[in-house]
Formats: sequence, structure tokens, C-alpha cells
Amino acid sequence: MEMTAAKLAELVKGDVVGDASVRIHTYAKIEEAGQGALTFLANPKYEHFVYNTNASAVLVRRDFMPEKDVKATLIKVDDPYATLADLLNLVSSSLVPEKKGVENPVFVADGVELPDDVYVGSFSYIGSGAVIGKNVKIYPQCYVGDNVVIKDNTTLYAGVKVYYGCEIGCNCVIHSGAVIGADGFGFAPKNGEYEKISQIGRVVVEDCVEIGANTTIDRATMGATVVRRGVKLDNLIQVAHNVEIGENTVIAAQTGIAGSTKIGRHNMIGGQVGFAGHITIGDGNKFGAQAGVHSNPGNDKTVIGYPAIDARQFMRQSAYLKRLGDLFDSVKELKKEVDELKNIKQNSL
Amino acid sequence: MEMTAAKLAELVKGDVVGDASVRIHTYAKIEEAGQGALTFLANPKYEHFVYNTNASAVLVRRDFMPEKDVKATLIKVDDPYATLADLLNLVSSSLVPEKKGVENPVFVADGVELPDDVYVGSFSYIGSGAVIGKNVKIYPQCYVGDNVVIKDNTTLYAGVKVYYGCEIGCNCVIHSGAVIGADGFGFAPKNGEYEKISQIGRVVVEDCVEIGANTTIDRATMGATVVRRGVKLDNLIQVAHNVEIGENTVIAAQTGIAGSTKIGRHNMIGGQVGFAGHITIGDGNKFGAQAGVHSNPGNDKTVIGYPAIDARQFMRQSAYLKRLGDLFDSVKELKKEVDELKNIKQNSL
Amino acid sequence: MEMTAAKLAELVKGDVVGDASVRIHTYAKIEEAGQGALTFLANPKYEHFVYNTNASAVLVRRDFMPEKDVKATLIKVDDPYATLADLLNLVSSSLVPEKKGVENPVFVADGVELPDDVYVGSFSYIGSGAVIGKNVKIYPQCYVGDNVVIKDNTTLYAGVKVYYGCEIGCNCVIHSGAVIGADGFGFAPKNGEYEKISQIGRVVVEDCVEIGANTTIDRATMGATVVRRGVKLDNLIQVAHNVEIGENTVIAAQTGIAGSTKIGRHNMIGGQVGFAGHITIGDGNKFGAQAGVHSNPGNDKTVIGYPAIDARQFMRQSAYLKRLGDLFDSVKELKKEVDELKNIKQNSL
Repeated sequence: MEMTAAKLAELVKGDVVGDASVRIHTYAKIEEAGQGALTFLANPKYEHFVYNTNASAVLVRRDFMPEKDVKATLIKVDDPYATLADLLNLVSSSLVPEKKGVENPVFVADGVELPDDVYVGSFSYIGSGAVIGKNVKIYPQCYVGDNVVIKDNTTLYAGVKVYYGCEIGCNCVIHSGAVIGADGFGFAPKNGEYEKISQIGRVVVEDCVEIGANTTIDRATMGATVVRRGVKLDNLIQVAHNVEIGENTVIAAQTGIAGSTKIGRHNMIGGQVGFAGHITIGDGNKFGAQAGVHSNPGNDKTVIGYPAIDARQFMRQSAYLKRLGDLFDSVKELKKEVDELKNIKQNSL
Repeated sequence: MEMTAAKLAELVKGDVVGDASVRIHTYAKIEEAGQGALTFLANPKYEHFVYNTNASAVLVRRDFMPEKDVKATLIKVDDPYATLADLLNLVSSSLVPEKKGVENPVFVADGVELPDDVYVGSFSYIGSGAVIGKNVKIYPQCYVGDNVVIKDNTTLYAGVKVYYGCEIGCNCVIHSGAVIGADGFGFAPKNGEYEKISQIGRVVVEDCVEIGANTTIDRATMGATVVRRGVKLDNLIQVAHNVEIGENTVIAAQTGIAGSTKIGRHNMIGGQVGFAGHITIGDGNKFGAQAGVHSNPGNDKTVIGYPAIDARQFMRQSAYLKRLGDLFDSVKELKKEVDELKNIKQNSL
Repeated sequence: MEMTAAKLAELVKGDVVGDASVRIHTYAKIEEAGQGALTFLANPKYEHFVYNTNASAVLVRRDFMPEKDVKATLIKVDDPYATLADLLNLVSSSLVPEKKGVENPVFVADGVELPDDVYVGSFSYIGSGAVIGKNVKIYPQCYVGDNVVIKDNTTLYAGVKVYYGCEIGCNCVIHSGAVIGADGFGFAPKNGEYEKISQIGRVVVEDCVEIGANTTIDRATMGATVVRRGVKLDNLIQVAHNVEIGENTVIAAQTGIAGSTKIGRHNMIGGQVGFAGHITIGDGNKFGAQAGVHSNPGNDKTVIGYPAIDARQFMRQSAYLKRLGDLFDSVKELKKEVDELKNIKQNSL
């Protein structure tokens, strides 16, 4: 796949500034790109790279005006990142060979029907009563428990485990090592030991959800742990029993959500955040990395810290903390001065 | 399985308040329950649900006195949660089909004996010299290394990995993706690089332990990493080499325990807590989520924060922190006033 | 394998103090060692154990002078830990049976060549175009995707997953459940939902790298996520897309590194640390456990806290925080005194 900048610009409805005849055959990050590579500039923080890049062409915003000479050909588009995304999808489908068919050996329980266009990789296990949708891809070494439902166009990468009775929607992507439907962490104290509370609920993952590598989503005690449409979960995230995550909420790696907590829609949650159990979180909030969230900030708020507070308040607190030594000194100084004043007073009486 | 509230009350030795003839056939959370469902009220925080629930029956404490009309039939018992737990166990065993036998293909090394009532799922691997107890269930795609011992009635869900020489007690439950016995993280600096220290110890998990999905427990450098009887570990927990966790200690998800640390008995440890290495922790303590623990709080203490301190002290500190801006203002104001006083003094001299 | 202290001392070029004829046949931790065991004392913190140990022999530093009677035979060496490491390696190779050959069933794509001395455990999958080096050990249930390269002497323990196109160097050790090359977490907002950005880059792991159990290293959006020579990663670590980790940097469990961040060489990073995305970190720094790192501390610095600051500054801050209540009291007291002074002033006018 090689084309000129002119041809590419035509494809993405962009305008060429510079040599329209340069030939492009690969993609690379702006700071690493070499000849023949296309790259992009979206974040102004990286603008300086545009002047030194060895890329042959750079996707830039329509309003981008270089301050210095640019060697590379510029292709001006409305949204360089979105344009790149579209191109990457195109390239990706050419890079990754389309998997189809059943690679033996696999275990498929009696009575399970596999659509013609399905992929089931070697050493995968599909339990009794499982329902597998059209164009589903189950890479090697996956475990699909009894009565699991996996809907159309969903991909399970190698080694995903889905416990019995859980349901995965359409167009989902689940990465290696993710565990869906393990028992919630429920125990009742009894005679100084703990007795297991059977977890008879399940996990429901709606459509268009992505679940990262080694992320764990526990089944509900009763009812369902629910991950709503469009949610994106990064790697190594913990979603406890009976949690509900609202539509299009995005969560970065290593965050944990304790039992029965409900997260609203369109939240953006940083990495290593912790949510206490049994709380309800509004919509459209941003949670800074490593925040410890014990209550609902409301809607459209930005919080950070432990316990999580308004981000501006946190910044002020951090600034105050830095000056805390000075404050102790000031108070000590004041004390001395007040003592002196009192002394003089005393003496003048 | 359907029965009347009267019949159920008889079964759990409870007293019926309301219509004893309502028929129950399912279980649900109080806020989600519909007709025909049993639910329970244990946490007073949820009392308001009891007045609106669509459940047909609710397990409540014997001393529960409704403040308003309740539509549902109440079944009064000593401990609603424990009663529910018993019922859930009953239901669970009817929901989850009992697994027995060996599903081919599996790899079982020569000389390994499998008891008649064992379950070994497809694509599981049992190494040379492994000892498998009665009624053990090894779900698909598990790895049981050479000379591993797994005692009676223990379940390994799909994809559990147990390295050579480790020992798992009776009545344990280990969830998918847990890794028992990987090398401890030990390296010695040598000429500006790091040289691996062979980890020749093992992991010993005693009886009645539950280990969550994708939790990792490293083998000891020498001797054993030990998880004592009745310990419950949630998902994605890290237990480093030579750690020891005392009986009936319960640890929530994503907590990490660094090398050689000893945790006592009956501790309750929140999520995302970190324990420094080479420390010894007493018994009966509570550790708040995200705490950073660098020393032993003693016994029966509640600590939180980083570094972890007494919880009440932490609350006070948090309250002070919120008022830190005011304090800076007060001191500034005081300074002005003192300066004024000094000025007057000066002038009056 | 049993030998006298005299013989062992000869082997490790050490000097015997005490009974050179005691016989040693095992290894144990100093506090757990029994008769016949060798142990070592490296950390002075554990010196007290040397006076009570039941070990038959203890490796100690050449300059170690016991303050009390020692029952065990001492073997004085330059570096007890390094000496032990060498001995452990010796023992380890005798403990762990050398794995060779192919254990059927495995899936090996047409055209993939397996060197004679390779080990491929049952239920492992080696995709089309994969290149497997000499003496590589692939334990059971591993997934080696299409076009993956695994160089000489590298070991993949049971259940490691390596996505298509990734490259693992020589002499690496990758523990169970590690996932190399899952998609980076990249999405572009589009009409209130998120659209996946295809991640067409890969992961390059250089030589002599160790990767812990259930650690995840995402493939780059474009280009490569790079883990340089000699890096040691503990368990449950998250390495996001386009991250680069410099030579001989060591990272403890559960740490996360956000997208595009570059970590320099010879850093020592504690557990549960979080690195923000798109930052560049120098060389030789130490990061305390649970630190939140938002900017480059420089080189050879020690930082801690959230946001991470100089460790000494953090200690001072912590000390001030403990006295914050006193400060509030002092200011209140001062206010009263100043008010009094002002009153007197007023009255005396």
C-alpha cells in the first residue's frame, strides 16, 4: 500500500501544502517517523516536532500555520487525530489477518451452534448452552462457560475467561486474561471464620464495550454486575460485584470499583483510582489518577486526591502544604513578638 | 423451585409478618426485586427500600419494626444475611451444574493418579508428581506444575496457574487467572546490571482459602510464602515472596504486600492498600482503602492514609487541611495587627 | 547434595569460623533454618537472628564480628547475598527438571520451525510466521501470535500471551498470565461515544528482561512500546502504549505507566506507583511506593508522595501535618492575646 500525498489528501478530503508527489507507505509517530511515513500533529505540545520530523507527510489542522520551514508535506484536515484513526483502521485490517473457522482441537459442548463465519482458536472451550453470535472471534485458549451469551461481531482475544451465565453484547473487544464473572467477594463472619456467600448473579456487558487485558469483572451476588453500552475499560481494572458502569464512561488502568457502586454516564476516570462501595456517582465527572472516591462529586466535576476533592481546591491545598514550614516559622515569630509586647505592657504598668 | 413464604419461614426458622401464602421462586436485590422474589434487609442504610420493594418477601431482623406500611411479606430471622447466605448456597448448587470426570484432551503426566470423583476440564495440564485430592475440580486450561499438591474439595476455575512444588489445602477456591508460585522479585546488582536470584522456595496455601481472579502469589526465595487457613483474597492482589498472611485475614482487591512481610490474624484490609516489605503486622486491625503501611499499627487498630495513621487522627488532619487556607489568612491578619501594635508602641515611646 | 562447611567454604572462597565439619544439605531463611541448613546474613537488621538460628552454617560478611556467642558455623565471604545467589542458581537447576521437546497436543502453524532443543508445552499455540530461537522454553497454554519473534534462551511460563508482531529478546523470563501486545487504550470521541483508534504498533522487549505474572504491556498506536535491556518488571504492572522503559530500570508490583511516557535508565520504582502520560523521566531516580509522578524529578533523585516530591521534603511535610492541630491552637491562642493587647491599648488611650 503506497500512495502519493496528493492521493492520500483526496482520500481524506484534505488540502496539500508542499510537495504533493511524495510517496507514503507507512505510519509512525512524529518523533520517530522516517522517509515514506505519514504522521500527524494534534496536540500543540508536539508542534516543535513538525519542524524536524523526517516524515514525508504530516496531517495537521486546517488552521495550522507553521512558524518555521517545514520539510514534510502538510495535509490539512478538520481533525488530524480522527483522520488518522480512520486511516489506522484501514491499515489495521490489512495488517491483522482475518481469522475464520475452527482450529482444532477445541472443546464445543454438544448442542452449541457455531455460525459459519465464526473463529474459534485452538484449545478454546465453549460450554453447554452457550450462544455464539455471527462473526464472533474467539482466539485460542478462551473459556466460555455454560450458558454464556456472546453477541455478534465481538472479539475475545487469547485466554479470556467468561464464567457461566454471563452475557457479552455486540461489537465488544475483550483482551487477553480478562476474567468476566468470577465470584464477587462476599463472606459472612461465622464463629470467627468467614463463610462464603454464594454469588448467584451474573455479569452483563452491553454493546460496544472494550475490556482491557487482565481486567476482572465479578458476577453479582444476586442480579447483575452491569457494564453499559460504549464503556471502555483499560487493563488490570477491578469491577466488584453488583457494580454498574454507565454508558460511555472511560476508565484507565488499575482502577478499582468496590461492591454495589453505581457509576454514571460519560465519566472519565484516571488510572489507579479507587471507588468505595455502595456509592452512586453522577455523570460527566473527571477523576484524577490515584483519587480515592468516597462520595458523589455531583455531575461534570473534576476531583482528585484522597479523599477526592475539587481539583482546584486540591491544587490550593498542595500549594499551602509546600508553605507549611514557613507558616510554622511565622507563628513562632509572632509568638515571640506578642510575648515581647506583653512584656513591655507589663513593665509599663 | 417455588414455595410459599410460610414454607420458607419454616425452612429458615423465621416468623412471618404479612401474607404467608405469597409464592417465591427467585432471589433479587431489594431495589431490583419483582414479584415472586425473595430479598433481605441487613444494612439499616437500605431500610427505605423495604417500603417500596416489589419483592414478595423480605428477610429482616427479628427486632425490625417498620415505620410505614410494607407491601411485602416479612420473614423475621436472627440474621437475614446469614440466612440468605444459606439459601444462596442451596440455590447455587442447583444453578451450577456439578462437574465430574475428565474432559479430553487433557495432559496428565505419567504416574499421576486422579480420584474417581475429580473434574479435570479440557486443556488442563497436570505435571509429573502432582497429587490431586478427592473431589477436586480443575476447570479447563489450568496448569498444575510438577509436584504440586492440591488437597480435597478444592476448586481451580478456568486458567489458574500453579507453579511446580506449591501446595494448596482443602476446601479452597481459586479463581481464573490467579498465578500461584511465580518467581519472587529478587535480583542482586552486579556490574551495573541485575542478576536473578533463583527463587527455590514455594507457596503453601492452607485450608479454606479463597483466591480471587488474576491475583498473584509469588514463591519464596527459600522456605515458603504462606497463606494461612481461612484467608480470603480478592482479585488482582499481589503477595510477594516470603510473605505470610495470618488466619482469617480478609483482603480486598488490588492490595499489594511486599516481600517478607508478615500479616497477623483476623485483619481486614481494604482495596489498593500497600504494605512495605520486611514488616510484621499484628492481629485484628482494619486498614482503610489505599493506605500505605510502613509499620505495625499494633492490634485491633484502624488506620488509613499515607503513611497510614490512626483513622481518627487522619480525619482530624483532613479537616485541618480543609481549613489551611483560613489559617494562612489568620496568621497574615495577626501579623498585621501585631505590627500595628508594635507601631503604636514605638510611637508612644 | 550434602557437603561439609569446609568444602562449601572452599567452593565459595570463604573462611570458616567455627566447626568446619558440620554437614549442610539444605537452604533456609535464617529465622526458620534447622540443622543441616545453610543460611545467610546480609541485612544488619537481622543480625539478632544469627545468635539464635538453628542453621548449621551462616554466610556472613568478612567484617562481621559477632557480639555474642554463635552456635552456627560462620562462613565469611565478600558478599553473602551474591554468594547465596550463586548457590541458589546451582540448587535451582537441580530442583527444576529441565524441560525439552514438544508435548502434544500443541498448535504450531505451518512453516514455523522449532529448534531441536526447544520446549513447547501442551496446549500452547504458535501462530503463522512466528520465529522461535534456540533453547526457548514455552510452557503449556502460551499464546504466541502471528509473526511474533522470541529470541534464544527465553522462557515463557504457563499461559503467557504475546499478540501478533511483538518481539521478545534473548534470555528473558516472562511469568504466567503476562500479556504482551494487547491494544493500547486509544479512543477518539465521536458524537458522544468513543471510537476505537486501531493500535497498529507493537511491543519490543529487549534482552535480559524479566516480566512478572499478570503484568500487561500494550502495543504502540504506531511504532513500538519498548522495554530495554535488563529491565525487571514485577507482577501486575501496567505499561501503556508507546511507553519506553530504559535499561536496567527495576519496577515493583502494581505500578502503572501511562501512555507515551519515557522512563530513563537505572531507575528504582516502588510498588503501586503511578506515572502520568507523556512525560520523560531521567536516570537513576528512586520512586517511593504509591508515589504519583507528574513530572521529571531529574536524575538520581528520591521522590515520594502525591504529587511526588523530594523524599526529605515529604518527611518534613508529614511531620508538620502531625503538628497541624497544635498550630491551629497556637494561632487561636495568639489571636486571643493580640485581642487582649489591643483592648488594653484601647483602654489606655
